[in-house]
Amino acid sequence: MGDTNLDSTGEPAGNALTDQMKDASIKGEEEDIVNPWNVQSTSATGVDYDKLIKRFGSSKIDDLLLQRIEKVIRKPIHHMLKRGIFFSHRDMHHILDLVEQGKPFFLYTGRGPSSDAMHLGHLLPFIITKWLQDAFDVPAVIQLTDDEKFLWKDLKLEQVHQLSYENAKDIIACGLDINKTFIFSNLDYIGSSREFYANMKRIEKCVTFNQVKGIFGFGDSDCIGKISFPAIQAAPCFSNSFPHIFGSRTDIPALIPCGIDQDPYFRMTRDVAPRINYQKPALLHSIFFPALQGAQTKMSSSDPNSSIFLTDTPKQIKTKINKHAFSGGQSTVEEHRALGGNCDIDIAYQYLRYFMADDLRLEEIRKQYSSGEMLTGELKKILVDTIQPIIANHQTKRTQLDKETVMSFMTPRPLKFRF
Amino acid sequence: MGDTNLDSTGEPAGNALTDQMKDASIKGEEEDIVNPWNVQSTSATGVDYDKLIKRFGSSKIDDLLLQRIEKVIRKPIHHMLKRGIFFSHRDMHHILDLVEQGKPFFLYTGRGPSSDAMHLGHLLPFIITKWLQDAFDVPAVIQLTDDEKFLWKDLKLEQVHQLSYENAKDIIACGLDINKTFIFSNLDYIGSSREFYANMKRIEKCVTFNQVKGIFGFGDSDCIGKISFPAIQAAPCFSNSFPHIFGSRTDIPALIPCGIDQDPYFRMTRDVAPRINYQKPALLHSIFFPALQGAQTKMSSSDPNSSIFLTDTPKQIKTKINKHAFSGGQSTVEEHRALGGNCDIDIAYQYLRYFMADDLRLEEIRKQYSSGEMLTGELKKILVDTIQPIIANHQTKRTQLDKETVMSFMTPRPLKFRF
Repeated sequence: MGDTNLDSTGEPAGNALTDQMKDASIKGEEEDIVNPWNVQSTSATGVDYDKLIKRFGSSKIDDLLLQRIEKVIRKPIHHMLKRGIFFSHRDMHHILDLVEQGKPFFLYTGRGPSSDAMHLGHLLPFIITKWLQDAFDVPAVIQLTDDEKFLWKDLKLEQVHQLSYENAKDIIACGLDINKTFIFSNLDYIGSSREFYANMKRIEKCVTFNQVKGIFGFGDSDCIGKISFPAIQAAPCFSNSFPHIFGSRTDIPALIPCGIDQDPYFRMTRDVAPRINYQKPALLHSIFFPALQGAQTKMSSSDPNSSIFLTDTPKQIKTKINKHAFSGGQSTVEEHRALGGNCDIDIAYQYLRYFMADDLRLEEIRKQYSSGEMLTGELKKILVDTIQPIIANHQTKRTQLDKETVMSFMTPRPLKFRF
Repeated sequence: MGDTNLDSTGEPAGNALTDQMKDASIKGEEEDIVNPWNVQSTSATGVDYDKLIKRFGSSKIDDLLLQRIEKVIRKPIHHMLKRGIFFSHRDMHHILDLVEQGKPFFLYTGRGPSSDAMHLGHLLPFIITKWLQDAFDVPAVIQLTDDEKFLWKDLKLEQVHQLSYENAKDIIACGLDINKTFIFSNLDYIGSSREFYANMKRIEKCVTFNQVKGIFGFGDSDCIGKISFPAIQAAPCFSNSFPHIFGSRTDIPALIPCGIDQDPYFRMTRDVAPRINYQKPALLHSIFFPALQGAQTKMSSSDPNSSIFLTDTPKQIKTKINKHAFSGGQSTVEEHRALGGNCDIDIAYQYLRYFMADDLRLEEIRKQYSSGEMLTGELKKILVDTIQPIIANHQTKRTQLDKETVMSFMTPRPLKFRF
């Protein structure tokens, strides 16, 4: 995460992009850089996501899709989907087709445990995974790529392995169902699953160095562990990698909620899948969670003021938001009253879009702030009041977790769900 | 094996050689090609091994070393060591130092199970491993690189996995001690050993694509599985890859008897070992087992007449030797009586050097054949009479093996030996 400017899933893990979009990604027309290791935007509103959809060849999550999801699950859609925080998808209609036919799918997401300092943005894939798990009543597998972090960072195996365990607690605290969720450290699980290892080899046989060079930007001086890593992030897409859950079935596709920066891994996987008679994974892509200082600045674990961490105290949260959250307001109260604030670049407002579920209240805030009726200090106070209980609640849940529960989540075992 | 001209261990597995010797290996001064995939010689006497020792930077197994081994084990040295069939080594003196100090080491060898048609030459590493195991009273680990064969050949995982099991029977039939030997299929063991997987990652982190390109000749269009495979052949060099045998100890070095063509893997491993605080493996290198048609011709599983297979009948053995074994004799009896035969290129004589343990008798045969006293037909008959019982005995032992015994050898478990 240290070298990531904006962060979605907390898993920068490859210097990515497919051949056709490589130039554009490095310094494209819109000058946004988006790959698993590096996300950079020159615009205060952040990355141009419509252009990204075109470049990546994914589909926009439109009203039609949202309505169809609501119809299938028979309850209101999550606000992060409604508000375009999850904005792009691949094959979500196919997943809904399966559900309508009474056929199964499963959720897959993950995290690279390079630090125990997880921040708010790191929770997004797990928050939406928990919601999808409840809404669709499906199992979820969550990969902790400690092996990847060992290869990429100056960390020992023992360190990344311990981080997996610490991060698992934060993930569990998001409310995932112990009867439907398997969280695994690669260092633990790969060394205990012939089936997972077999799928790694099947994938490795289908992907050349040329391809990972094109997709992830790997070079000749990268270590061979990095070069073959993409197969390890691809393997959980295939249901028979988890025989304790799915037996030897290969007909159950994965739905992957993740940051758009992780898409290169799964474009690769979708290319490989039909060649080995497996199902292509479907995806839900999220936009990038902005740093406190604004969408074009750097959010980093080494800068504690760049984000709100899951370990922050109420006071720290208040101070950070008041001192560091980039404001879209005007420079004087008079000007602000006259011209209004700019919600598109105001970080306090943007954070509320992620964490305030109440649509009506959020819209009210938007109107008041845009019109100048609400001042920056007032808006920031609302954010403080919203975030403090979320973090406090998270910390309570995390503290209450006993080792036994964490180990249960991390033990290969059958999961309960309807097929 | 299909693309190997001469074969030692039956494990061509990389297009090898280190940077400094790359040119020489591809078309060097002596025009011998020696790497894990391809061994070719233009000379009827085969590869120039003295030059190879220089190029590879290994040491010759000289009389001093042989005498020291005999002194340490207090019994006669194996004829394959005495006769220079194992001709080169790395750090064998260090292994003897350890033995003299009462410190442990272990044996490591292996095979790539690409075919169930194993031939005589494939047995060499296992014959010497069995002898070393008895002589030094040490454990042996034997890697079946079924994952490698899957990546390199047009074979399915299920096929190579089954071949592992079939090949294990031939290896066990060489007489390895069930209490001191662990034979493992990579597809089985890696997916059941966190420790082995952890060592794979430690090695992968230390080796770049540039390095495997230089050592093994990998290219951009090779699949990522091939590129990272060398770490998998390196991992068994480290004792803590086998916690059921060695616990977490990392101070026990491996001694690897193998064909000289496999050396590139272990040069790489010896380079990595000190960087991760592990012991460098020691090696004993064998020359290449010649094809029946002569040392410069191709021995191939697809040509049943190029070698004697472990499944051949006594009649097939007799016919093959009589019809196909390249003769160093003269074209007429009269000439032969006058000029004598050339033992250096005579395949019947060369095979006897591998398989006739009796030094005095072999020397007698050499004298008689060289002087012309013994005719080619007579020499061939001696070879037939030597090989037929070896193969018959092997077949009997293999047939007598029950599934339970094979599974015992292949089950991770403690091994009995003195520390």
